[in-house]
Amino acid sequence: MRTQIIEAATAHFSHYGYDKTTVSDLAKAIGFSKAYIYKFFTSKQAIGEVICANCLSQIERDVDDALEGIQAPPERLRALFTVIVASSLRLFLQDRRLYEIAVAAATGDWPSVQAYKHRIRQRVEDIVQEGRAAGVFESTTPLGDTSRAVYQVLVPYLNPVTLPHVSALHAEAPEALHQLVLRSLVIPS
Amino acid sequence: MRTQIIEAATAHFSHYGYDKTTVSDLAKAIGFSKAYIYKFFTSKQAIGEVICANCLSQIERDVDDALEGIQAPPERLRALFTVIVASSLRLFLQDRRLYEIAVAAATGDWPSVQAYKHRIRQRVEDIVQEGRAAGVFESTTPLGDTSRAVYQVLVPYLNPVTLPHVSALHAEAPEALHQLVLRSLVIPS
Repeated sequence: MRTQIIEAATAHFSHYGYDKTTVSDLAKAIGFSKAYIYKFFTSKQAIGEVICANCLSQIERDVDDALEGIQAPPERLRALFTVIVASSLRLFLQDRRLYEIAVAAATGDWPSVQAYKHRIRQRVEDIVQEGRAAGVFESTTPLGDTSRAVYQVLVPYLNPVTLPHVSALHAEAPEALHQLVLRSLVIPS
Repeated sequence: MRTQIIEAATAHFSHYGYDKTTVSDLAKAIGFSKAYIYKFFTSKQAIGEVICANCLSQIERDVDDALEGIQAPPERLRALFTVIVASSLRLFLQDRRLYEIAVAAATGDWPSVQAYKHRIRQRVEDIVQEGRAAGVFESTTPLGDTSRAVYQVLVPYLNPVTLPHVSALHAEAPEALHQLVLRSLVIPS
């Protein structure tokens, strides 16, 4: 049932928007009672949370697919940057209605968003660590500081509110940030 | 007269907000006729443009003051990063009402904003160029590409819409981005 409510809610929000829809509207539209919906979800945000988490999982699946089979840490970092930006642009900005959920989630720093950011930060650290272990990235700076800085460069491209403000620059030179970050990491040969 | 209208409008917007104020409201509040205001400004945005340009000029004056007397290009780059972030945080986020003008300007990419971004981009390129001339920054990459990438790292901190979403990360490690960028530029000694 939970899944059915989520599917119906996703369709409904995508048509009528998230901000202006109440749980009553939703209940009426999908043919369940409000009380029944509240048996599964404590609030509209709780439903939005699941939709948001599904969307973020899709981005991470895209990243996993892209990273699979890529061995070299510099190439893995490039794939991470490229796929996150492309996938976020597609998912956040394509559907104006679901975009409202993404904005509410990012602005309210919902738990699903916090968990997502934490995992992306960890992925960055893992790749930096792999690069150090392989001897291609410098190891003189503290791992935590350096991977946080790399993550910080990526952050504006993860967030649906900031993404529209940086996407034009990214389109101008899609490799620019990646190249800059890479030059800061790679040991000159 | 122009200046007097701007001063009165700044005070009025800062009290009542920019978005909901009309030129009629403004005229009534500051004691000029609407027709008289239209002799000087073609629209509310034209007034907002001047207020916005004044605010951006203030940031650039802060940058100039900080850069004065600093010679070494790496230190100049650090001052540029540090002062722009501090000054933007202060000016954009301190006054919630004037923040509305900044958001309208950034979202609409007003001419004053375009000109500001262009000048900051030029400042970044000048410092990268100085560093190359002084032999402290690498010169193997194309100057335009490299300075654009450095500018791109800075952009989320220039924009009042994106700034609140990246300022916590910046506060966590204020030197992180600067250090990353510097490692990408400086020739290892």
